[in-house]
Amino acid sequence: MANPSMETEEKDEAPAQAPRDGLFIRVYFGDGRHLGPGMIDLLETIRRERSILSAAKKMGMSYRRAWLLVDEIGRNFREPVVETHPGRRGHGSELTPFGERLIALYRSIERDSALASREAVDELRAALAPPGTTRG
Amino acid sequence: MANPSMETEEKDEAPAQAPRDGLFIRVYFGDGRHLGPGMIDLLETIRRERSILSAAKKMGMSYRRAWLLVDEIGRNFREPVVETHPGRRGHGSELTPFGERLIALYRSIERDSALASREAVDELRAALAPPGTTRG
Repeated sequence: MANPSMETEEKDEAPAQAPRDGLFIRVYFGDGRHLGPGMIDLLETIRRERSILSAAKKMGMSYRRAWLLVDEIGRNFREPVVETHPGRRGHGSELTPFGERLIALYRSIERDSALASREAVDELRAALAPPGTTRG
Repeated sequence: MANPSMETEEKDEAPAQAPRDGLFIRVYFGDGRHLGPGMIDLLETIRRERSILSAAKKMGMSYRRAWLLVDEIGRNFREPVVETHPGRRGHGSELTPFGERLIALYRSIERDSALASREAVDELRAALAPPGTTRG
């Protein structure tokens, strides 16, 4: 049966991974701006790859899309999140200290929220129908 | 400029409301099943309207969509979330005690997560660029 949910799959979720488990959290700032796991995953991948192009490839998105996303994150905050050194071929991008702070803050929100809601989530899990069954 | 974000607007968010503020949380169960604010909003509206049809109208969705969504929530868990009494015209649907529990658990996850991550969220807010500005 087609999924009738209002909560459709979305592009925060990297393709071809195991189904998500636990809390999915996006932080909204009340004016349309927000920070979510897709942005943070991209920053972490740029940190590892030291390149927006390599990060885009790893994440299966176009360079343009990755660049625009980095630009969007940067414009949302007072400080830049990525620094680019056009001279260094292939390893031209690095996170700024503020970019690192953004990752740390977001991951701590995920971690602290998961801890704070563990009992309620466990009760939900215990109430799930066995997978593949159809009640009634 | 078009929004290049991977984290697009989605249908969890009711139309024509103020921009979302604070944490948006969806609980994933590791097998594709999840529980999110759109489902919970619908259950709360059904509780208030005592009717899936009225709830659908209030939320600007088709009856079919609301019904399928209620059906999906019900199939995900061991117990039904809504009870329908076909005899009573217009007020034929009520939440089951388990439906009430689902709402309470989800809202407590939201509340406890917001409390646990308040400092980090405040630091993010303080780092936002003033609205409407473009840095650099």
